[in-house]
Amino acid sequence: MTDGDGVPPWDDDELAGVDAWWRAANYLTVAQIYLAANPLLREPLLAGHVKPRLLGHWGTSPGLSFVYAHANRLIRHTGQRMIYLAGPGHGGPALVAASWLEGHYSEIYPRVGRDATGLARLCRQFSTPGGIPSHVSVTTPGSIHEGGELGYVLVHAFGAVFDAPDLIALAVVGDGEAETGPLEGSWKGVSFLDPRHDGAVLPVLHLNGAKISGPTVLARKPPEEVRSLLEGHGYDVLEVSGDDLPGMHQRFATGLAEAYDRIRAIQRRAREGGPQDRRERPRWPAIVLRTPKGWTGPEEVDGVRVAGTFRSHQVPLAGVRERPEHLALLERWMRSYRPEELFDAEGAPTPVVEAGNVPAELRMSASPQANGGLLTRDLDLPDVRGYALDVLRPGTVRAESTRQLGELLREIYTRNPDRFRLFCPDETTSNRLGAVFEVENRAFAERTEPDDVAVEHGGRVMEVLSEHNCHGWLEGYTLTGRHGLFATYEAFAMVSASQTVQHAKWLEEAGELAWRAPVPSLNVLLTSTAWRNDHNGFSHQGPGLIQNVLTQRGTVSRIYLPPDANCLLAVSERVLRSRSRVNLVVIDKQSQLQWLDLESARAHCAAGAGVWDWAGTDHDTDDPDVVLACAGDVVTMETVAAAAILAERLPRLRVRVANVVDLMSLVRPRDHPHGMSERRFREVFTDDVDVVFAFHGFPGAVHQLVHGRPRADRFHVRGFVEQGSTTTPFDMVVRNGASRYHLVVDALNNARRTPRGAGDLVDWCTAQLARHQEYVVEHLEDMPEVRDWTLGDWAHRS
Amino acid sequence: MTDGDGVPPWDDDELAGVDAWWRAANYLTVAQIYLAANPLLREPLLAGHVKPRLLGHWGTSPGLSFVYAHANRLIRHTGQRMIYLAGPGHGGPALVAASWLEGHYSEIYPRVGRDATGLARLCRQFSTPGGIPSHVSVTTPGSIHEGGELGYVLVHAFGAVFDAPDLIALAVVGDGEAETGPLEGSWKGVSFLDPRHDGAVLPVLHLNGAKISGPTVLARKPPEEVRSLLEGHGYDVLEVSGDDLPGMHQRFATGLAEAYDRIRAIQRRAREGGPQDRRERPRWPAIVLRTPKGWTGPEEVDGVRVAGTFRSHQVPLAGVRERPEHLALLERWMRSYRPEELFDAEGAPTPVVEAGNVPAELRMSASPQANGGLLTRDLDLPDVRGYALDVLRPGTVRAESTRQLGELLREIYTRNPDRFRLFCPDETTSNRLGAVFEVENRAFAERTEPDDVAVEHGGRVMEVLSEHNCHGWLEGYTLTGRHGLFATYEAFAMVSASQTVQHAKWLEEAGELAWRAPVPSLNVLLTSTAWRNDHNGFSHQGPGLIQNVLTQRGTVSRIYLPPDANCLLAVSERVLRSRSRVNLVVIDKQSQLQWLDLESARAHCAAGAGVWDWAGTDHDTDDPDVVLACAGDVVTMETVAAAAILAERLPRLRVRVANVVDLMSLVRPRDHPHGMSERRFREVFTDDVDVVFAFHGFPGAVHQLVHGRPRADRFHVRGFVEQGSTTTPFDMVVRNGASRYHLVVDALNNARRTPRGAGDLVDWCTAQLARHQEYVVEHLEDMPEVRDWTLGDWAHRS
Repeated sequence: MTDGDGVPPWDDDELAGVDAWWRAANYLTVAQIYLAANPLLREPLLAGHVKPRLLGHWGTSPGLSFVYAHANRLIRHTGQRMIYLAGPGHGGPALVAASWLEGHYSEIYPRVGRDATGLARLCRQFSTPGGIPSHVSVTTPGSIHEGGELGYVLVHAFGAVFDAPDLIALAVVGDGEAETGPLEGSWKGVSFLDPRHDGAVLPVLHLNGAKISGPTVLARKPPEEVRSLLEGHGYDVLEVSGDDLPGMHQRFATGLAEAYDRIRAIQRRAREGGPQDRRERPRWPAIVLRTPKGWTGPEEVDGVRVAGTFRSHQVPLAGVRERPEHLALLERWMRSYRPEELFDAEGAPTPVVEAGNVPAELRMSASPQANGGLLTRDLDLPDVRGYALDVLRPGTVRAESTRQLGELLREIYTRNPDRFRLFCPDETTSNRLGAVFEVENRAFAERTEPDDVAVEHGGRVMEVLSEHNCHGWLEGYTLTGRHGLFATYEAFAMVSASQTVQHAKWLEEAGELAWRAPVPSLNVLLTSTAWRNDHNGFSHQGPGLIQNVLTQRGTVSRIYLPPDANCLLAVSERVLRSRSRVNLVVIDKQSQLQWLDLESARAHCAAGAGVWDWAGTDHDTDDPDVVLACAGDVVTMETVAAAAILAERLPRLRVRVANVVDLMSLVRPRDHPHGMSERRFREVFTDDVDVVFAFHGFPGAVHQLVHGRPRADRFHVRGFVEQGSTTTPFDMVVRNGASRYHLVVDALNNARRTPRGAGDLVDWCTAQLARHQEYVVEHLEDMPEVRDWTLGDWAHRS
Repeated sequence: MTDGDGVPPWDDDELAGVDAWWRAANYLTVAQIYLAANPLLREPLLAGHVKPRLLGHWGTSPGLSFVYAHANRLIRHTGQRMIYLAGPGHGGPALVAASWLEGHYSEIYPRVGRDATGLARLCRQFSTPGGIPSHVSVTTPGSIHEGGELGYVLVHAFGAVFDAPDLIALAVVGDGEAETGPLEGSWKGVSFLDPRHDGAVLPVLHLNGAKISGPTVLARKPPEEVRSLLEGHGYDVLEVSGDDLPGMHQRFATGLAEAYDRIRAIQRRAREGGPQDRRERPRWPAIVLRTPKGWTGPEEVDGVRVAGTFRSHQVPLAGVRERPEHLALLERWMRSYRPEELFDAEGAPTPVVEAGNVPAELRMSASPQANGGLLTRDLDLPDVRGYALDVLRPGTVRAESTRQLGELLREIYTRNPDRFRLFCPDETTSNRLGAVFEVENRAFAERTEPDDVAVEHGGRVMEVLSEHNCHGWLEGYTLTGRHGLFATYEAFAMVSASQTVQHAKWLEEAGELAWRAPVPSLNVLLTSTAWRNDHNGFSHQGPGLIQNVLTQRGTVSRIYLPPDANCLLAVSERVLRSRSRVNLVVIDKQSQLQWLDLESARAHCAAGAGVWDWAGTDHDTDDPDVVLACAGDVVTMETVAAAAILAERLPRLRVRVANVVDLMSLVRPRDHPHGMSERRFREVFTDDVDVVFAFHGFPGAVHQLVHGRPRADRFHVRGFVEQGSTTTPFDMVVRNGASRYHLVVDALNNARRTPRGAGDLVDWCTAQLARHQEYVVEHLEDMPEVRDWTLGDWAHRS
């Protein structure tokens, strides 16, 4: 990077390069949408040259390329390292064109060379079976952002620049996207950005006026309101509007240079100054760019205005194969870019276009940050033994399991000051992860006050009351090669479920591209779970995200339900070391009984599932009468308690207890790589003995996971059946029919042998449940002392 | 409502009533959180009077009650009909206290009377097993908003006032909630509000500075930035700050009266003026209220500041049962409200408190809008026969099914100008529902332009590029008794999945309260589905929402997969007439083959699932060799095509074809009220014949739904297995292994008899799939004419 801010004033001599590059990008965009042949228009355009089906989005594309062309100019003058995020990702052909013009596309995809043959392939492959998608996609070099599901361009941009002081993320926000909640909620990234150790995001709010068929709010607001809005978010607003050329080149170049100067000035001040200079949140620049939708495209078609209206959103000339006048319009449109100046005899970009490029190592399409696996350094992970609980005998120690993880995270923060962050909606302490605050503060760039605790402009624990921000920041952070964890209330993980799904899709596709290096996984810790949301109630009780993650491809999706602290540690070391996965880890934060020492926990987690001999009564046999299985902490407690009751009351019944940590181990290996082999599955669950399965989530999840396993209908699943309230933990398991008493009754109803005394025990269980019900009523009347507020004491044997 | 705006200037004589009411509400809030006995402090407070477990949120509560007390004053002076939405719904005890003070709580729950016994019960029940949740919940009279999952208070408020010109929704936005994406994206409701036929939303942005353990962005921003932000959204900002009393009473009363005057002025201008007065978006007032968190609570505990900090978020004095000094602090705190002035000898509110109430018919806790079922009038639904397609023979007509629904919706708009709206993220036309624009325009209060189509300030079709807004507006609209439909791209329904889940929870709970009248259902139409997102690709391909809706309670959740237009109409008339359901309806918008005439469609949809005799070859027998089942339009086409191939190639194989419209009919009746009886299930799927099931969504959904049915493992499900791209529809079914050829092979592999020729047919299918693969490659090279761009022509027999 140059020292000075150093963008010289706009010089008309530069126009040739910038404008030619832009025309070339626009030309190639139109060609990708329309042409199957004759991509250089070396012969008159015929209907036969046009694709059989026209797919793609023209409207936003010229604006995306305009910004790209000018960013290139900025990079040429400053040597700045930038990545480009196209919020309106449906402008895919614009970004593909940019990458091709920069030569990087052909480096990655040699078939699509920088010549006429390559150009023909570039066109044919676009939005075509066997080719590439119409959106900016995983296949697009330089991208960490698809922009299919709108709303996340700024969260990805901010995530990319945290702990990346030398990087600027240029983020184009479309005015359609700007209407979404997640996008509106993400302008506030500047309230969490530190100019000293973070890079900068330069948002370009691109107002082109229309969505698919209606106007956009921001484009139709008075400009002073748009300015007011962004100033309210804390930005220093620069505006560039119009469609006049070369005027727009000049004005945007000036605006961009000005924005860059301001960014550099903020960074210089922060990085050179003393601590006091960090106290006030900088006013980071943002650009509002107003250009017509479909700029440079057909003004009018069939007597109706197209450019500047919603009609240019997708394919503005739909009838080119059937209607000669449309075909003529298309040819005139394409020739208006003067392709003969842009491509040489071989079809390669001419020198005037090349002049619009940047040095190879600074090409945005080749940015290593956008292929973050290239930059990934392993996390320096301490030995988790240092954080393990001593568990000499199962069920004798109680602890808040996530507190152990918090201590591990504290050490990870210490060892990895530049490549690990925790993201959490204001619940780090509540989730018992507060140990991190012993070594790192919350990031907060707004005013702090004396009563704040662990809040600092330069903090690196990311707390914002927005699952969308947390999730999206972590995505941007990991896609650019760093590591992290998103910890959130289980129920509210549904808020960002679509992001989880979309990120999984990204990783699924990335795994099929050899050139995309694996990136650190997206680790999601769900805590404050359904079963223990005692004081919040029904709205906070929902294990829904499991339902969505289990449908993603086996190459990516992982769901872990560690039953205790040491299993959580064992799972954590796995997921923090893993690459390109979506790891869901579910465990509650409340004090709970501990079962395994670390060594056993590691072995158990490595196996994914196993028999807990110490909990069952089938020690001397391979032939249990019934299997009590469980996955999830609270239901594990109930299962162990049920087994204890059975052991005491009906000692001759052979009960096996099995615990599942890695939920995907239940799946057939052909459906998921973690699926237990058939042999192993039989070892745990037998061939045909009935299994009473207590599950943390909705029972149907287990039903679908064991489908295809031997006699799957012997699995009788108890789980969360959408019953809840602000109530005691024990009442929660009773309401959902997953208490120890329910499990005992299920076990007796499904065991192969029904020993004498079974009927009495069923009666006893029924009586226990009735007594609980009485207690609830009585409690409301008389508020006696606590009797069953927690589950923790309930591994009783009577 | 009074004619004049008519709030007289603040008069110190009014102080007594407003302040006493507020003190009473605060007192009752603290009492609910802490006390199990001695609720009136008629005797000195002892540890034994304190609840065994302290749960609840104090911090936000005094602010909520302050706003409520002043809203009451406004209502007393103006007769205005208002509803109150508490964004920080965790301030539940404040709203319960308000309702009790208004007397409505005791009307609904006579057990909790307005006397000492009732007060004791009021306290005991709070956040207690068998009692009421700690959040504003379904049990709270006057509420349509729980505020558990944060972000939706403004969308609910706007939804409530659409087509309710006489209503003002007072919406308190907490500064924690204000950080969420959905909330930030919902200020823009004013850009869609019409002062003529809609009511008004009065947002009170309540900045109290802290969340659970950290500061909030808006509270710590310079006040001018907050003002700038809201002005940018289009509001006219009034600010009230402080903690001084009675100064705050006076200033807030003045601010509220001023806001009310401005609302009424806007409405008068719009309602009395000519059309030109409607052109400019009004600047609706919004109030920024700054008070300390935990205002009036303990200033300092154990030497640490509490009021005004995050420490007052929940229970500011945690050790009252153990530590006498905490107990003394609590008693001092409670007595600071002077309960002896507030409650009479019986425990009822004293006249000075009653003076703070409003006339019974205007009580916000008794607002009929907040129990919208009371106001619900049936939708005037035309006979759907007028919109049916003529289908003389199955598979002979092609049509865009949703277009028929669009025509039905047009007529519904015409007949129900005050009680039906369509909500859609800018995709009404794209989703083939554009017929509505023949009779109604898009609502849009910002500047319109000549090229806009069907855009008008007073329009009532709600298009905003925000699933959160669409979903939340519809929730608010239906909870206040009106009808609607949210139509969206299937994949992006995940964006608002958490809203779907939370609304289902609301309806589940409401169904258990006799006093809550059933409300119109939340109808969600998922179109532009995974299988036919040809031009958008993988990010747009995801049937995930089904996974979440199928886990909700059977009292509420419904999932319909109509295979064609007439089934869609038959389903639509059911869901539009239904009450208190979440109805998911999934069908694509592209041209597709039509199967059933309306009469058959109605019978089929009423049954939920049935055998399609005309498609199978088991006519003369109850004993098919294999069942081909399907649910969903595209896979139904593939299934019929597979059956046709089998009929031609292996006419002696007895193939039954069954179609499922109502997905929940698959479930055992004990698990869902729509579940088919065992007898009926056997009639459709036989006892034990293998079923090859082609499913629209993820296969696991069917696996879990048929769990417990006879020999459930005979169901072999093909569905969406997370494979996709921008490609042809036929390629989509091939990639996901759900094409007709896959189904034929599955059928042959699982049929009870394998007739001669089966091997040849398997080979032929394999060859067809290979040929398809070649075609994809060939296509990329040569771009031949369209061969298989659509599925529509593929019910072939060769």
